[in-house]
Amino acid sequence: MNKKIAVLGSTGSIGRQTLQIAESCPGQLEVVGLAAGRNWPLLVEQVKKFRPAVVAVAGETEAVQLRAGLGAEYKVEIYTGAEGLEVIASLSEVDTVVTAVTGTVGLSPTVAAIKAGKHIALANKETLVAAGELVMQLADSHGISILPVDSEHSAIWQCLNGEKRAALQKIILTASGGPFREKSFGELAAVTVEMALAHPNWSMGKKITVDSATLMNKGLEVIEAHWLYDVAYESIQVVIHPQSIIHSMVEFVDGSVIAQLGLPDMRLPIQYALSYPDRWESKLPRLDFKNQFGLTFEQPDFERFPCLGLAFAAGRAGGTMPAVLNAANETAVAAFLEKRLSYQGIASLVDEVMNLHRVIKHPDLETVLQVDIWARRQAARLIGKL
Amino acid sequence: MNKKIAVLGSTGSIGRQTLQIAESCPGQLEVVGLAAGRNWPLLVEQVKKFRPAVVAVAGETEAVQLRAGLGAEYKVEIYTGAEGLEVIASLSEVDTVVTAVTGTVGLSPTVAAIKAGKHIALANKETLVAAGELVMQLADSHGISILPVDSEHSAIWQCLNGEKRAALQKIILTASGGPFREKSFGELAAVTVEMALAHPNWSMGKKITVDSATLMNKGLEVIEAHWLYDVAYESIQVVIHPQSIIHSMVEFVDGSVIAQLGLPDMRLPIQYALSYPDRWESKLPRLDFKNQFGLTFEQPDFERFPCLGLAFAAGRAGGTMPAVLNAANETAVAAFLEKRLSYQGIASLVDEVMNLHRVIKHPDLETVLQVDIWARRQAARLIGKL
Repeated sequence: MNKKIAVLGSTGSIGRQTLQIAESCPGQLEVVGLAAGRNWPLLVEQVKKFRPAVVAVAGETEAVQLRAGLGAEYKVEIYTGAEGLEVIASLSEVDTVVTAVTGTVGLSPTVAAIKAGKHIALANKETLVAAGELVMQLADSHGISILPVDSEHSAIWQCLNGEKRAALQKIILTASGGPFREKSFGELAAVTVEMALAHPNWSMGKKITVDSATLMNKGLEVIEAHWLYDVAYESIQVVIHPQSIIHSMVEFVDGSVIAQLGLPDMRLPIQYALSYPDRWESKLPRLDFKNQFGLTFEQPDFERFPCLGLAFAAGRAGGTMPAVLNAANETAVAAFLEKRLSYQGIASLVDEVMNLHRVIKHPDLETVLQVDIWARRQAARLIGKL
Repeated sequence: MNKKIAVLGSTGSIGRQTLQIAESCPGQLEVVGLAAGRNWPLLVEQVKKFRPAVVAVAGETEAVQLRAGLGAEYKVEIYTGAEGLEVIASLSEVDTVVTAVTGTVGLSPTVAAIKAGKHIALANKETLVAAGELVMQLADSHGISILPVDSEHSAIWQCLNGEKRAALQKIILTASGGPFREKSFGELAAVTVEMALAHPNWSMGKKITVDSATLMNKGLEVIEAHWLYDVAYESIQVVIHPQSIIHSMVEFVDGSVIAQLGLPDMRLPIQYALSYPDRWESKLPRLDFKNQFGLTFEQPDFERFPCLGLAFAAGRAGGTMPAVLNAANETAVAAFLEKRLSYQGIASLVDEVMNLHRVIKHPDLETVLQVDIWARRQAARLIGKL
């Protein structure tokens, strides 16, 4: 059995690691479509290695460069822009679409893929944060699976394997706590961009690294977990676990807790999303119990990390509020990275934009995208005033 | 759905906790048979509370006392001796037999129960250690499940839930390390009975508490895991985890590790064995991640804890050797508790008896029971010579 996959965002961190998995599992995975943004030189290499029939890039400039880079030997259809993403997401021969583009741009192609009956290996955070209700309903009505690629959600999913929904009592989402776990409120006022980008365990993009420092990343994961596993916010507990070995846990109604452990390596959850319901052998580095080591747990501090509380509040408010949280946060983090906003300004700004928003219940995709734009504008306006 | 159970060894630690579960799950469990040894006063109470139709006690003396204790009001059939155990194990209305008698005496009624088509909630260690091959074959041919009650094997079983056998790479059996984890070889020479009976985490019977101190208990569990999960000894790793929160783990071929966690409380694995494939709500105390805590892991020391190596060696030798290991150990521990043998003499004695034994491959039940008697005699003889 050969699973045919398309990768949206193939030149990003998750995209590249997905292709590593495809390379290490040649009998199991076949790459039939790739979509990237502007990194056409890497896409040239990827096309030469995996020989997909169809690819997409950001625009005409990249398409021309890609065609030139490939030369006459590689017959590949090239699409561009938003249409390109949707074409790759809907290719008839594809079984599973890996949605590894970042940002709201990932939403429409994910919806297109679901409507085309593809399973989704989900690495795009915005899909469930901004549009969880409509995406889960759509997935349900099209009978496809949303397969989480995130290490935490993959962990929860693995812990739920073979269990009945009625048995689930609580989700325990672990968080490394980021680089500022032990900083006082006062010390957090002096946090710089460089400090925020030094994550202790995971090597990731800048935006998600800052989100890990503020715990907004964990907050977004709380909202995703709510939708993925149909669990009330009261039944999702965030626990700080600085070693990032236990990737999350589930407590069942009898009191039993199941946890998934592994080294911090995204290739494992990526592979699992693609191998499910099987597991494929891998040469990924193993957690070694011959070494002496320790795992610790403590409560998150909602005072020092207000973004976590904002995410719970947005999730509980429901409707369009998580989309606002996400868009305002993205704008705030960009401003922080450009040194136009302080570290503590991120949470304040998100809070302010949320306060300006009137929740629209059960939004459709168009409404979500409009609210996303609205929230970014509000955030930019408020930053401009500072 | 009302599961009908019989409990062999109802007045022992596991038996009493099984009845606590039955009491807390009245809609789910019905106790239809009880077998005890000499503790007829407690059995009187249990019969009054659960009103089984049939019970068994050790002998005529206990039967008379039980009848008198119950009075005319309770119409209950009373059986005695080995026959009594087999009658309770084979009662036609029973779905699951909880085998919580200790020692080789548990073997024959377990075999009788399997032949009668009962599922086995297994708490009798000797069943799989001494007769793993024949019991698993018998279970297979009668289409019944062996449901582990031991916390470690229950953990492994829960970790394997929903997974395919081909995905299993390694079993990681956790051990508290017992009270002597940090003692040097020299200090172990001075260990007394009182010291060996002070287990840091679990409250259990004397024999199993000593086995936890020598790590023989973990060794016996290695052999049980081998048979229960059809895993080679090379693929079973023992890891010292002093907090006894992770009850065991499984590593899959993709490198993912699944663990089961909980407070050290036997009622959870007992309930799971009876609720499987469901989970029932319970009021058992929960692992609380609001508390700050740590979990540590280290390698076991086969030099200071030679019983662990002896168990692996007996398992690898196969055939009747694990029965010899178990019988010699039981005799040695009894002698240690009677202060006729030193703590370090336990391992030496087991080693000596194993050296005297010629393995018989694929033994039947009769052979296992004969070898058990032989090993006890050899052990007693060697102790007598000391």
